[in-house]
Order: sequence, then structure tokens, then C-alpha cells
Amino acid sequence: MITNNFSSSIKKIKLLITDVDGILTDGKILINSNNTETKIFNVEDGTAAALAYYAKLPIALISGRYSKCTEIRAAELKIKYCFQNTLNKKKVLNKLKEIYSVDCEEIAYIGDSLVDVPVLEIVGYPISVPDGHELAKKEALFITKKKGGEGVLLEVVEKILKEQERYKDVLQLMKNDKFE
Amino acid sequence: MITNNFSSSIKKIKLLITDVDGILTDGKILINSNNTETKIFNVEDGTAAALAYYAKLPIALISGRYSKCTEIRAAELKIKYCFQNTLNKKKVLNKLKEIYSVDCEEIAYIGDSLVDVPVLEIVGYPISVPDGHELAKKEALFITKKKGGEGVLLEVVEKILKEQERYKDVLQLMKNDKFE
Amino acid sequence: MITNNFSSSIKKIKLLITDVDGILTDGKILINSNNTETKIFNVEDGTAAALAYYAKLPIALISGRYSKCTEIRAAELKIKYCFQNTLNKKKVLNKLKEIYSVDCEEIAYIGDSLVDVPVLEIVGYPISVPDGHELAKKEALFITKKKGGEGVLLEVVEKILKEQERYKDVLQLMKNDKFE
Amino acid sequence: MITNNFSSSIKKIKLLITDVDGILTDGKILINSNNTETKIFNVEDGTAAALAYYAKLPIALISGRYSKCTEIRAAELKIKYCFQNTLNKKKVLNKLKEIYSVDCEEIAYIGDSLVDVPVLEIVGYPISVPDGHELAKKEALFITKKKGGEGVLLEVVEKILKEQERYKDVLQLMKNDKFE
Repeated sequence: MITNNFSSSIKKIKLLITDVDGILTDGKILINSNNTETKIFNVEDGTAAALAYYAKLPIALISGRYSKCTEIRAAELKIKYCFQNTLNKKKVLNKLKEIYSVDCEEIAYIGDSLVDVPVLEIVGYPISVPDGHELAKKEALFITKKKGGEGVLLEVVEKILKEQERYKDVLQLMKNDKFE
Repeated sequence: MITNNFSSSIKKIKLLITDVDGILTDGKILINSNNTETKIFNVEDGTAAALAYYAKLPIALISGRYSKCTEIRAAELKIKYCFQNTLNKKKVLNKLKEIYSVDCEEIAYIGDSLVDVPVLEIVGYPISVPDGHELAKKEALFITKKKGGEGVLLEVVEKILKEQERYKDVLQLMKNDKFE
Repeated sequence: MITNNFSSSIKKIKLLITDVDGILTDGKILINSNNTETKIFNVEDGTAAALAYYAKLPIALISGRYSKCTEIRAAELKIKYCFQNTLNKKKVLNKLKEIYSVDCEEIAYIGDSLVDVPVLEIVGYPISVPDGHELAKKEALFITKKKGGEGVLLEVVEKILKEQERYKDVLQLMKNDKFE
Repeated sequence: MITNNFSSSIKKIKLLITDVDGILTDGKILINSNNTETKIFNVEDGTAAALAYYAKLPIALISGRYSKCTEIRAAELKIKYCFQNTLNKKKVLNKLKEIYSVDCEEIAYIGDSLVDVPVLEIVGYPISVPDGHELAKKEALFITKKKGGEGVLLEVVEKILKEQERYKDVLQLMKNDKFE
């Protein structure tokens, strides 16, 4: 955890990276007797992706375990970079820093478990969830109110946009383009 | 939110429209590795549809996202108009007003998220759920006790019929026809 | 609700009938985009069926809605009579009275919704669940601690056997035959 | 329940055996109309299996009911011995004692229901969950904080390693090998 001013660290964020199981889902893995797998996502994280799109805030996924379900959901949310089967998340973090030309302190990362700790330790705005592992929560500057799978991504995107004082503008942009 | 007498506004209701994800479900989207999708509905909303049928209160659905699951459930509930893939919900609202020859103030609408706000702002009886987005709940004249997916539609239909002083009659009608 | 001594009414029970959705499940209906359906049962109701088998207490199912899932689960629990697509549950109740040569007051029935009320009104031991409809709960002599889908059948079977002072014997019988 | 010093009994543990339904899952059995079955596991129990691997603490499964889903999950967690369709769990326990050359008091067993009681009675470190059957919880030396399906295996593995004063070492081993 980089110890600096909480509010200033969130203002710098230019890239949001998130773990999948336990964040976009509640950590449940449904295994079917016909060898398919199901994951339970939340429709509200679709709203999050839309808001982030209008805010030009890219979202990327890093998952320790591979699942076709995650690939499908990432495509639906129009998330361009979705790394899976990645236990060494720091390596991927470095790749994403290059791709988006950002520093660690311009990155927010949401993670809930042991495998996320090494990344939470080095990003500018480490985030965890109330039902996360103690060692993950210890590294976080912000613990969401929502539990994993309840719409954590929406809560985080709204928080970032509000702290960056552009929530209302982005919301209006989305409304004008889509809702009205 | 139209500021008028709460009880008089519910008495005028002739058409009930509802969002799907987060209302008929708890917002969860189950994505399967074989590219199918599952939604979790509540059996009690079937009772709601039956009660509404006997009460001659039409129910329509407007969903921002398309899902075959919603189509199947709507058919099972004998809901005639089920609009999907509709982010501009106001446009569809206008279509439904024509179809059923009703005014905005004769419409109750149940919605829980940002995309529902523009509709909640203009209908006669805007309704939300306890786990809805703050901006949706702010527009609501009534917040259900049930959370999304717990039988919200039944709670709303029963409330409307009770306020319109015809719950017992409709219940008796259903009992006579089906249960006895 | 037949007003008589609570404990004496449970002692007479020779047949246990239960509704399905909201009792053996939490009322959730999973609809898949490939037109299949899923119901969520509880493994502990399998223990209930085993105990009832050793206690020679038959269990029957009456469901208002048809689902293949219920048929599969009933077969797994070795439940002989599983009536579905039955909104007039009193008619089926009469059939079951004949099949098992029992009177209404020898029947326990578990139900949670409006369609169950006419049956709850006439059986000897009407039971409901904490998350049941108010009108169903009003008729019940006993409300389980478990919610629908949490193992309601096990709680009810254990309660009946305990009140009939044969729980320990039946448990021992099952242990001797299966566990040891 | 073997009455001995709590902390010394956990220090001796060389083999961890667990029931499946209600421990690795919340006891829910999803039955699909196309005759397939689904079980809901928790991603965090994958972390548990990884930690146990680095700690050289073998994990084995004994399930009363057969399910292909359990077989799939066991393979994914690289659990070598997964016995299913086993109501007489003591018999399998004896087999596992031979396979791993351990005594009863070197075995920790996690179980939540009636069928688990005979095993909980004889192992050195009997464990149950908060939502387990009263008779199972009565035999337990330790009741987890997590409910079934919430990551019970991770809580238990971490507890064993902490009591055996090797949690930090094992964690470091896993980090060095996988995360960094």
C-alpha cells in the first residue's frame, strides 16, 4: 500500500483493473455434470462498463483461473484486455502499464484474495470487498460496500468518477446518448 | 416524480410496466461456458401474473438488455408485450401508452437502475426496490419490502389491488376458477 | 386451521404432503436460454426422505406448476406420488387420502403460497415457512425455522418423529442400516 | 469426540478429509430439466487446495451421494482420493488411514450432517459448519466462521497451518513459486 493522500491517489487513476472471481462474481463456481461451467455476474456491472466507456476510463481483467464464462462476459462488457490463467498478476500488470502508458500510481486494482496481494501492494489505488481475504483487505485503501457479485464494479466506477468530479457530466453524456 | 396524493395516484393505475433484471430477478446473470445464459426468476411472480389477469390489469416488460430467458419467462407469464434491448425506455413507454390507451399517470413502473430513471420520473406511480440504485429509489413513490427476485411483482400487484379496494374480490375470483 | 391441541394433532400424522417451489426450493426458477429449466433443491431433504422411509411415513408432492426438475428430484428421493400442474390441490388431496387410506386430520401439509391456502385450511397439521405468503402462514399450526430450500423437509420430518417419540429409534435404524 | 487438548489435537493432523455437500457447497443441488446436475463450489477452496499442496497436507473427499460435478471439482483441485456414493463413511475412513498410514487422531474431518456423525465421533480433529446439523456440530472441536460453500476449506487449511506454526512459511513458498 502506497501511503499517500487518499483523495489525491484516486484522482490520478487512469486505468481500472479488476480480478474476476469474488469481485465480478461472489466467488461461486457452478460446475455442471456435463462438464460445462457457469459464473454468476451482475447486470449492474454492465452499467459500470457503460459509464467507464463514456468516461474514457479503460477497464481490464486479470483472473487467476481460466473460464470461458469470463471471456464471454468480458466481450459483452467490451473489455479489451482480459488476462486469465494468471497466478503471477504482477507480470500482467506490467504489460498493462505498457499498453496504456500508465504508472502504477495511476492504476486502481480490485482484488479479494491471496493471489491479489502482490498487486494490491503496488498500485496507486488498491481496492477490496467486505468478504475478501483479511490479507487483501489489509492492503486496500478502499473497501466497497457491495460484496463480490453485487455490483462492485459499478460502485467503484461511480466512486472514481465522483472523486474526479466528473460523475454528473459522464452520467449526462450517457443519458443523452442512450436513454433519451 | 409527480408530486400528488400518494393514494390517489395508485388508484388510477391501469397498466403495470416493469424492468426485468433486478426486479423479476436479483440482477444476477448466469453465463455458461457453452454460451447459454440463465436468469433466476421467482415462482411467486407467476401468482402475480395470475392475479393481474383476473384483475384485468395488464403487465408489460421493458428490459435494457436482450435475453432469451426473459422471452421464455414472459411467455410463461402470458405477458403480451416484452420489449428488450431497449436503453431508451421512454420511447417504448410511449408505444405502450398508445397500445393500451393510457396516460402516464395511469402507469405504474418498477425499476432499479440508472436506465430506469427517465421513466420513473414521468409515470404516475414510480416504484423501486430496496437494493435499487440510489437515483432510482429517489424517484420512487413506493419502495417494495421484497428485494429484486424475491417476488417483487406479487408484492406490487397485491398492493395495487388492495389500494384499489379489489384485492379480496380478485383473489376470490382466482380461487373459484382455479383452486376449488 | 383446525383448532385443536397442537401436540395431539401432530401425533396423528400418517402422511406428509408438501408443495415444491418455495418449500423444497427457495422459489427460484432458473430459466436457461436453451429452453431448459433448473430448480435448486437441498441435499438435506434427501436425509429427510431417508428418515421418512425408515419411519414408514410416506411423503407426497403437489406442485401447481409442472417442471421436469421436480420429477427428477422426486424419483431420486423415491417419492411415489408427485402431482404437478395442479392448481386445484384439494382434488389431489382427496386422491391421496384414498391411496393412503387416511383422513384429513392424519395429514401434514407444507405450503407457502396462495394456491396452498385451501389445503392448509383442511389438513390436520398445516405447516408453512418464514418466507411464505401471509395468508398461508395464517393457516399454519407450525412455521419452520428453515426458509424454503434450506432443508425444510428435514426439519419437518424430524419434528414429526420427535413429537411422535420415535426420532431416536428411527435414527438408530437408519444408522445401523446405512452408516455403520 | 475425543476429549483431549484442543491445540495439541490440531498439531497432530496429517490428513484432512471433508464431506462435499454442505461443506464445499452450501448444500444446494441444482437439477436441470435436461437431466444434468450442477453444484456450486467456491473459488477460494482452490486457494485452500494450493496451500495444502505446498504444505504437503493431503486432502480427501467422502460424499454420501454421487455426483459427476464433485468428480470434476476434485480433479480440478488435484484431490487424489474422492469417494462418492458412500453412506458408510467409516469404512472409507479406514481405507484412507491405510493409504496415508495415519491414525484416527492424525485426521481432521469436516462434516455437516447426520451421515457424518459416525466419522466426526472418531477422528482426532472433528470440524463442522455453523449451518450444520445440531448432532454434527455437537461432535465438533471446531465450528468454522464460514458457512458451507463460502470457502470453508480455505478457513480450515489456514487454521491448521497456523496452529502448526507453518502458515507464513507455506504462504511464502506459494508466493515465491506462483505469484512473483
